[in-house]
Amino acid sequence: MSKLTHFDKKGAAHMVDVGGKDVTEREATAAASIKMAPETLKLIQDGDAKKGDVLGVARLAGIMAAKKTADLIPLCHPLALSNVSVDFTVNEVESMIEVHATCKLKGRTGVEMEALTAASIAALTIYDMCKAVDRGMTIVETKLLKKSGGKSGTYEAS
Amino acid sequence: MSKLTHFDKKGAAHMVDVGGKDVTEREATAAASIKMAPETLKLIQDGDAKKGDVLGVARLAGIMAAKKTADLIPLCHPLALSNVSVDFTVNEVESMIEVHATCKLKGRTGVEMEALTAASIAALTIYDMCKAVDRGMTIVETKLLKKSGGKSGTYEAS
Amino acid sequence: MSKLTHFDKKGAAHMVDVGGKDVTEREATAAASIKMAPETLKLIQDGDAKKGDVLGVARLAGIMAAKKTADLIPLCHPLALSNVSVDFTVNEVESMIEVHATCKLKGRTGVEMEALTAASIAALTIYDMCKAVDRGMTIVETKLLKKSGGKSGTYEAS
Amino acid sequence: MSKLTHFDKKGAAHMVDVGGKDVTEREATAAASIKMAPETLKLIQDGDAKKGDVLGVARLAGIMAAKKTADLIPLCHPLALSNVSVDFTVNEVESMIEVHATCKLKGRTGVEMEALTAASIAALTIYDMCKAVDRGMTIVETKLLKKSGGKSGTYEAS
Amino acid sequence: MSKLTHFDKKGAAHMVDVGGKDVTEREATAAASIKMAPETLKLIQDGDAKKGDVLGVARLAGIMAAKKTADLIPLCHPLALSNVSVDFTVNEVESMIEVHATCKLKGRTGVEMEALTAASIAALTIYDMCKAVDRGMTIVETKLLKKSGGKSGTYEAS
Amino acid sequence: MSKLTHFDKKGAAHMVDVGGKDVTEREATAAASIKMAPETLKLIQDGDAKKGDVLGVARLAGIMAAKKTADLIPLCHPLALSNVSVDFTVNEVESMIEVHATCKLKGRTGVEMEALTAASIAALTIYDMCKAVDRGMTIVETKLLKKSGGKSGTYEAS
Repeated sequence: MSKLTHFDKKGAAHMVDVGGKDVTEREATAAASIKMAPETLKLIQDGDAKKGDVLGVARLAGIMAAKKTADLIPLCHPLALSNVSVDFTVNEVESMIEVHATCKLKGRTGVEMEALTAASIAALTIYDMCKAVDRGMTIVETKLLKKSGGKSGTYEAS
Repeated sequence: MSKLTHFDKKGAAHMVDVGGKDVTEREATAAASIKMAPETLKLIQDGDAKKGDVLGVARLAGIMAAKKTADLIPLCHPLALSNVSVDFTVNEVESMIEVHATCKLKGRTGVEMEALTAASIAALTIYDMCKAVDRGMTIVETKLLKKSGGKSGTYEAS
Repeated sequence: MSKLTHFDKKGAAHMVDVGGKDVTEREATAAASIKMAPETLKLIQDGDAKKGDVLGVARLAGIMAAKKTADLIPLCHPLALSNVSVDFTVNEVESMIEVHATCKLKGRTGVEMEALTAASIAALTIYDMCKAVDRGMTIVETKLLKKSGGKSGTYEAS
Repeated sequence: MSKLTHFDKKGAAHMVDVGGKDVTEREATAAASIKMAPETLKLIQDGDAKKGDVLGVARLAGIMAAKKTADLIPLCHPLALSNVSVDFTVNEVESMIEVHATCKLKGRTGVEMEALTAASIAALTIYDMCKAVDRGMTIVETKLLKKSGGKSGTYEAS
Repeated sequence: MSKLTHFDKKGAAHMVDVGGKDVTEREATAAASIKMAPETLKLIQDGDAKKGDVLGVARLAGIMAAKKTADLIPLCHPLALSNVSVDFTVNEVESMIEVHATCKLKGRTGVEMEALTAASIAALTIYDMCKAVDRGMTIVETKLLKKSGGKSGTYEAS
Repeated sequence: MSKLTHFDKKGAAHMVDVGGKDVTEREATAAASIKMAPETLKLIQDGDAKKGDVLGVARLAGIMAAKKTADLIPLCHPLALSNVSVDFTVNEVESMIEVHATCKLKGRTGVEMEALTAASIAALTIYDMCKAVDRGMTIVETKLLKKSGGKSGTYEAS
């Protein structure tokens, strides 16, 4: 028998039964950091609604992707997210953009996968928008920063 | 005027016109590597159709995600992919699973984003399947390994 | 700082947090009116399950589109609609079909966009079904007729 | 027997067989104009990547909706669009924003519905972003401006 | 090594590479037959655009489902179907409705799954529309009737 | 006036208003049985994560399809399923695989269509995986086995 909750006693994948869980306030924040050539970073920083707003496009892509999580991750529950936000921090020292995505829900299951999906797709959209000038961009870290709510309580990345 | 092809002269985002490009054989391979606790890696390695096949689920999630790329990445063209495959390499030294995704197309535009999306969603699915035992898993690198076909020719990651 | 609720203090688009709003009965009705040549209107009026039921197809398209609203309108919340209906009124004087769409929800956010999306897609479907005989059909007015429920209360178009 | 191509001899709806049609260059442009209070128009005009870029969000929504047309309009063919662009013209005299959407394809069927869907969803997104300050905004005209390619040739709205 | 084409040498599922296959005219027809109480059949037969057109709704559901096949069947290729039609035959002797769905494509892979998906979803929609009066309805046979085109040639059910 | 709840007094299809129904625990189980050549059954039985796990792929396809039911069945409500599981029983005597799908929800409407959709798509996926060796496979029975919860109470197939 697997210790992994997404499998039943016979090893078959299933969508975990959350019907018995409490409806609580749940929140999760995930990060994805994309490293690039300094000139690419400058192109993005110079952009705005007039010159081409890479981060505006990536933010929307992340928000919309959060809503598609149950379509993408096979065993995720469909959720009625109450809030999604995606923010960017430019790290000039590392020539990197850090994407932070936060999702919230009043519900029976956590929203970690929604936050991770939003951050990942936002970072991939930055890649798509800039790949013609910098194919070597790399997402150097994608991870859960924190989550709260539910029986397993609060988690914060060390 | 932006140097980024996804914006027009006025800085407005648009889906690039690929109508004038040649139909050629296009291929791309992307990688995403997810690092985890050694016990988590062992759980995944022990899994199979009887005990819970994490990698089998992640592979399918990656393949299906490749087909949704144009739905996720705002300025990507809808494509009739001719082939998608997703493979895993276990790196015990680093306690890491490396996802490799390859996409092919006979068409007018490249399939880098499809390969990157497949690799990313496969890695996120591994996270989802194992997060109950290891919330600290981190995708430490997501990048394009190589692409070929089209006017910009062949690219290989250094 | 923007007065528009879909942007945060820094001007970044986000999905508004509705977690703190009350669950109330919400309802909205929207209209879209499509004008056409009198012969086109007659073709549609003569249609039925035997001769081709344009309005039956358009009604279903509208109902199904209401369920996709959160997929289409970037900052809309995913909602579990409790009811969707789409009706048609033939206005022979104006040679026009008026689409009315009504959506209901017990939830934390309004359903105006769902009603507007249903009415718009139903009208576009009428266009699609008849465009081979009348490419000049025009949707002359799409608007919210009324909405109720929630903190902002009842609105009725003047 | 119906004169409408979307029905067969018995009046049953079907997706028209386009297998025998030539692959030609097809293009269509549609417009949707949304009228609003002058203060609402000013809010949108003042917006940018720093204060909230309503039109940037609406443009992306329109582009992404064009790719979903076959999902929304029941009898539309799935198409591999080669190009989608969405532009806005501010008409201060009429206190109105005019959305223009253009789609292109090398294929066997026209792209009128894709252009109309893009324009409609972009206009509805403007409504969504501003509805908290102006619920009376109205899309006063949605129509095909021109289309070219295919057996039925070129059409231009009078 | 599996004899099943959807697995590679190592037993991993993949989307078969069809890039090397010829573009030929492909067609497939599938059937699904749903048996019901005679009174239920009579309700459906009496229905029309005025009294409730069960088969009109089921036909559209089938056509739209054909377009979603690659979203539903994990290893199916995304296809630009050129034609989809769904028809119904009432079999009063057996108290049964037979759904026939036909799909066509000029492409590199067959459309059997598209035809089977269209027939299945049309039959399930009949179930949905009538389940309040007859929960015991049963789809007694779903199968491929014939397919043509491609290297494997023509198949006809015996 | 129709006796079918999916039509209103005028015979127009609509999504039934479930806003007044109680939130209760709802559950449904459906079955789909696919008959095949004995050699095909053997190929599937021999399969595993190393040789090709047909049933593992079909299970995931069924689970993911349950989440898409409201997208496929036109008048179904979008639901936040709390649990989905799909199991297989090999019937060697009949050379058949029986798919059982169970869905659960705390909500205002039943989940019969979700269970039927999951079972149907899992069976079609088995067909897809094996069709290269056995095009004559037939789904010989798809039906609701039982459902509970809601005003109409419990139903069990005879």
